[in-house]
Amino acid sequence: MAITFLNRLSSAAETRWLEALRAALPGEAITPDPTPETDIAVVANPAPGALAALPNLAFVQSAWAGVDGLLNDPDLPAAPIARLIDPGLAAQMAQAVAAHVLALHRQAPAYAAQQRRGLWRQLPQAPASARRVGFLGYGEMASAAANLLESIGFQTYGWSRRLGDLETLLATSDYVVNLLPLTDRTRGILCSAVFARMKRGAAVINLARGGHLVEEDLIAALDAGALSHAVLDVFDAEPLPRNHPFWSHPQITVTPHVAAVTDPASASAFIAANIARFRAGQPVEGLVNRKAGY
Amino acid sequence: MAITFLNRLSSAAETRWLEALRAALPGEAITPDPTPETDIAVVANPAPGALAALPNLAFVQSAWAGVDGLLNDPDLPAAPIARLIDPGLAAQMAQAVAAHVLALHRQAPAYAAQQRRGLWRQLPQAPASARRVGFLGYGEMASAAANLLESIGFQTYGWSRRLGDLETLLATSDYVVNLLPLTDRTRGILCSAVFARMKRGAAVINLARGGHLVEEDLIAALDAGALSHAVLDVFDAEPLPRNHPFWSHPQITVTPHVAAVTDPASASAFIAANIARFRAGQPVEGLVNRKAGY
Repeated sequence: MAITFLNRLSSAAETRWLEALRAALPGEAITPDPTPETDIAVVANPAPGALAALPNLAFVQSAWAGVDGLLNDPDLPAAPIARLIDPGLAAQMAQAVAAHVLALHRQAPAYAAQQRRGLWRQLPQAPASARRVGFLGYGEMASAAANLLESIGFQTYGWSRRLGDLETLLATSDYVVNLLPLTDRTRGILCSAVFARMKRGAAVINLARGGHLVEEDLIAALDAGALSHAVLDVFDAEPLPRNHPFWSHPQITVTPHVAAVTDPASASAFIAANIARFRAGQPVEGLVNRKAGY
Repeated sequence: MAITFLNRLSSAAETRWLEALRAALPGEAITPDPTPETDIAVVANPAPGALAALPNLAFVQSAWAGVDGLLNDPDLPAAPIARLIDPGLAAQMAQAVAAHVLALHRQAPAYAAQQRRGLWRQLPQAPASARRVGFLGYGEMASAAANLLESIGFQTYGWSRRLGDLETLLATSDYVVNLLPLTDRTRGILCSAVFARMKRGAAVINLARGGHLVEEDLIAALDAGALSHAVLDVFDAEPLPRNHPFWSHPQITVTPHVAAVTDPASASAFIAANIARFRAGQPVEGLVNRKAGY
């Protein structure tokens, strides 16, 4: 029995991960290169086909919460896969959502534009209790964010495969936060048809995957005034290309995929506990449903 | 017995206030001009000397939480004065503090600067639990803000006339939020001597009064790198003059005195209850201590 940390990280990042995994799993042999004994793979952007080359593979643990990249491997073997469920990651995501919603709610983009012009003008300010934040996707991260926003005073509404009504969310939310997994059913969900069903002047915050967004539809909705603003942390191509129109659009806030960054130490605690469950023959947490795609 | 609403507001704002006060105090005669029966003045920026002209004045209720302007009236009569204590106002202030602290914590100014340059670069992100927010002043507004920030995950520390240690606050806070009343003891408190005792790279958020800040000391501290950023909602001269250097300083966020705006309806509920207490011979809430200055 041995654990392989299959990754395409920088060597500095690989070293941090190996140190964190070894500290959390002191009884296990953990190497970056596969051995004939490898039965468990911990994966962080593994090369396509790398898992198929492990003859004794019994369990795959993702180092990320999102497994859309992993599931795109055409040679993915049949072993069970678990995604990362990290309370530290959910807390980071909740803070990122709160920061972006509060900035939009308190009209930070408008006041920044006024500051650039030296313009002193007080804008009408609604109370948070009169504003609803709608969550596309309602897993660990969205529910942590919704709890935090409710403690700030906002109304919230969640929609997922099992919960809520998309039409109600779109028709009643002032801020729509996307935290969906990227699957065949959710790819391109942020498109003209959805923007048209949102409240006029609502804002979109995409912290999930670039593949959820139809980029040209967003620009059309902003330019037409249907949406007031978009905060985008994730993109089809990352890094976002230098000449991409998102960089300079006055109604788009661009951040470089930083909403919730996996911390090796925090993640390794979950990974170690999940591997212990697997070794003990117990059900693992975060088991991926391949048909659902997450 | 009659109530006069002494103010120098726009006529639209005066009308909104009179409607709200009359709705909250249906048994009282309330007029904008004094009458011989006036025994209670509700005041919103009254002209200096206007209160001294009321021969039967027995109680003054401020429509604002801050009474520094009122106490500057050289002809202020001896009647007791109450300041506004409005849970709606405290909730607004708490949201403003949370919005500004989260924006600084999540490095919004740095990412906005990167966006202007088309630069994709992920910056190290500390967890909120590793950051302390220090409050200068710890009344209703600061304690509401501290509760909210703790629920987000930040450490907090409060300092007031009766609480805490200023040296500890300055030496250990990453974000220093000023919510002090403006008095002879607090005027100019945000000065070089205080900035020098703060953590290097800390940020200042001034949501109280412009008179708390020594403007040239702030610019010197920012330019020297001692402080990383300042959020300023209040200024010595308001509106902030068009040619003021704050407008264009890259490390200063300017907002036009909007952190917490008194809502006539919400404020009138407190004012009506306080007037009822006064009429019943009970102690009023928010009684101003003239010696302390708030």
